[in-house]
Amino acid sequence: MSSERLQQQIQFVIEIDRLKQILRQTRIMGGSRQENSAEHSWQLAVMALVLAEHANEPVDPSHVVKMLLVHDLIEIDAGDTWSFDDQGYLDKAERERLAADRIFALLPPDQAELLRALWEEFEVMETPASRFANALDRLMPMLHNFHNGGGTWRRAGVTLQKVLARQNAIEKGSKALGDYSLELLEHARNLGIAPEE
Amino acid sequence: MSSERLQQQIQFVIEIDRLKQILRQTRIMGGSRQENSAEHSWQLAVMALVLAEHANEPVDPSHVVKMLLVHDLIEIDAGDTWSFDDQGYLDKAERERLAADRIFALLPPDQAELLRALWEEFEVMETPASRFANALDRLMPMLHNFHNGGGTWRRAGVTLQKVLARQNAIEKGSKALGDYSLELLEHARNLGIAPEE
Repeated sequence: MSSERLQQQIQFVIEIDRLKQILRQTRIMGGSRQENSAEHSWQLAVMALVLAEHANEPVDPSHVVKMLLVHDLIEIDAGDTWSFDDQGYLDKAERERLAADRIFALLPPDQAELLRALWEEFEVMETPASRFANALDRLMPMLHNFHNGGGTWRRAGVTLQKVLARQNAIEKGSKALGDYSLELLEHARNLGIAPEE
Repeated sequence: MSSERLQQQIQFVIEIDRLKQILRQTRIMGGSRQENSAEHSWQLAVMALVLAEHANEPVDPSHVVKMLLVHDLIEIDAGDTWSFDDQGYLDKAERERLAADRIFALLPPDQAELLRALWEEFEVMETPASRFANALDRLMPMLHNFHNGGGTWRRAGVTLQKVLARQNAIEKGSKALGDYSLELLEHARNLGIAPEE
């Protein structure tokens, strides 16, 4: 018989399957459907491997990857809160804390602590690795919106000012990617797909 | 203006979005839809973080994670070849080599070489980390099939013998997970959802 520890670990692996059903507002490239948070997490992890050299301070790419792999797990219970959903942000922190309490606790205690610490590090944005991970999480939807004819930028209530406020966090993790995202907005403006001013 | 290097890297990040549209035969837990190779890669990467202690020989979890993040990228061009598709296996290696030639070459040469090496390591199964990564890639569809009432195990042409032949690779990477997968098949038989004998 397999050990209780292994059974707990497998239970966790099965539980996280549900992240594949959490839909984001962003659509995949081409726009055919909404993106889910599992495939989004994968793309950010590969992105971290490829773009790590652009972090403002040296970061261990493997550590950034780990943080990004688990950063959205809490959405299994808390749902995805869209960046421009002011109402959703009111109780976001509390919903996500409760989710973390349940989801990470499915693991054996030592691993629950390790994975929860990665999630908390991502959330508080106090380490260079976390600031870089958050920069990628902000840049990716801009790439999707740009390549999807404006995407969520064109929704009612989304303004250039709000987008620039979110974009600001990119620079904190990576000056190079911050500059890139500003170029992207400039191109978007020329194409007539930028957020309203 | 952003550097040519950064532009190449971003182009790669955009290109890999297509992996979200590559559908596997396996269905997500609950069976509501087919799983795609991007979310599958994410789940295996988290699995590696959680199960690394069960590898037959000590492995660096971060290295296994990197291998799993890129192991299916070639499917963007080559498509997903189902484990029990004998016809598809005839030219699988050639299709995947051509895909690797194109996809990794989108990156700057130093990174193209690094990521392609990870994919090749996964494919040849000669290192402990690769054997463990492959074990996870074989175990996960068994978990899906078991929790989806038999899933692809119940298809015409899939026999217990064929499943055991694939399961055999799990033991090569992890004796503990190999044993677990045999327990799973035994449970499946008791529930009447195992592959035909």
